[in-house]
Amino acid sequence: MPRYKLTIEYDGTGLSGWQRQSDVLTTQEIVETAITQLTQEHNELFASGRTDAGVHARGQVVHVDIAREYEPYSLQCAINHYLHQKPATIVKAEIVHDDFHARFDAQKRYYRYHILNRRAPPVLDAFRVWHISEQLDISRMQEGAFYMLGTHDFSSFRGKDCQAQNALRTIDSIQISRDGDMIYLDIAAKSFLHHMVRNITGTLKLVGTGKWQPEHVQDIIAAQDRRKAGPNAPPHGLYFMKVDY
Amino acid sequence: MPRYKLTIEYDGTGLSGWQRQSDVLTTQEIVETAITQLTQEHNELFASGRTDAGVHARGQVVHVDIAREYEPYSLQCAINHYLHQKPATIVKAEIVHDDFHARFDAQKRYYRYHILNRRAPPVLDAFRVWHISEQLDISRMQEGAFYMLGTHDFSSFRGKDCQAQNALRTIDSIQISRDGDMIYLDIAAKSFLHHMVRNITGTLKLVGTGKWQPEHVQDIIAAQDRRKAGPNAPPHGLYFMKVDY
Repeated sequence: MPRYKLTIEYDGTGLSGWQRQSDVLTTQEIVETAITQLTQEHNELFASGRTDAGVHARGQVVHVDIAREYEPYSLQCAINHYLHQKPATIVKAEIVHDDFHARFDAQKRYYRYHILNRRAPPVLDAFRVWHISEQLDISRMQEGAFYMLGTHDFSSFRGKDCQAQNALRTIDSIQISRDGDMIYLDIAAKSFLHHMVRNITGTLKLVGTGKWQPEHVQDIIAAQDRRKAGPNAPPHGLYFMKVDY
Repeated sequence: MPRYKLTIEYDGTGLSGWQRQSDVLTTQEIVETAITQLTQEHNELFASGRTDAGVHARGQVVHVDIAREYEPYSLQCAINHYLHQKPATIVKAEIVHDDFHARFDAQKRYYRYHILNRRAPPVLDAFRVWHISEQLDISRMQEGAFYMLGTHDFSSFRGKDCQAQNALRTIDSIQISRDGDMIYLDIAAKSFLHHMVRNITGTLKLVGTGKWQPEHVQDIIAAQDRRKAGPNAPPHGLYFMKVDY
């Protein structure tokens, strides 16, 4: 049975995150339903990572086994036919080895957080950005972010429902950039804790406004206490961008 | 009576363009209504340019006279209060001289056209981009665009309802750039004919796909015949970005 790797874009607005649940609509259910309409089989998707309710993706990666061998582009088009008008689309389809695993083989995951930093509320970017009216100093944010680079115990940035065995994670890169009123926070790591990117963003926001000094990030990490870090940034500014294998 | 210059962002989706009409909803009506709710006067907006149904703006500029003198930021916030949940927002408010005119004083207008160039349909950018599946070669498009630079009779790119007295216009700059699957066409001129940016985009698309040679743009301009140019690109990829005074 051939195994396929699918790269998926989705709009998290109004959905209850990636993972299938019995009582609410999720992205996994939307995409699995489309594939089942095509194949008339039960095809389970295995994702590189779950995303929370409201979080978007430009490059979520999943694998799925399908009985029939499709030419990848034909498979992409056929699934997208059943996804017509749905908030998800297959950006790329590839045939992979039988032992490829979207989650366990992931080497690096990339997230981008979008902040709209101006007084006026978002219109064209509604549900796509975190709106912050207070002026943010991205050089301070970048300095604060510097202390997060590398391997640390990230307990202070860990959501309470996190199921990971330990809080040790390695941040490979974290970049803050500005384009007009938009601020982008780009972060990459092999893996993240639950809510980790949003908690990091909420913390760096308080460094950017001047409430906290950049060096204070060191104390927050050292505390290993969620109550010491900033608030959880809202989900609708977060995009799951890409996975390296 | 103080005169204010307002910079407006709006989402053109579902609206019948900028200019007020008796039977359909337009951006002008939405913003004028909000201002009137604040001032209890009849305040007419004069825009730097009209936009068509479905076209977006990040920096439409208007002027308006209001009896009371407001601190500009207070005015911005007060109008935005009445624009809450509407598809328009005041990005900036300024007090200007009595003789400032948003339309007649405009020195340069900037538009950006967004193309999503990939096989999968847009999800996160739905209603924000023109989706073109065929691979576009932007170096060809840039070469074709080169022939449009400067002063020409743009009759071949003029919409049939255009009310301008003549078709002579001067394009100051036109740049095609790519960022992943997104292609941006940035164009600036003192003024444009009706549908001119969309007709230019539709023409350069056919250069980008290889249907037309870049040099063919010269023949199209010389023909001064709308039927010789490419089709009108859809409105939802177009953004009115900025005006210089």
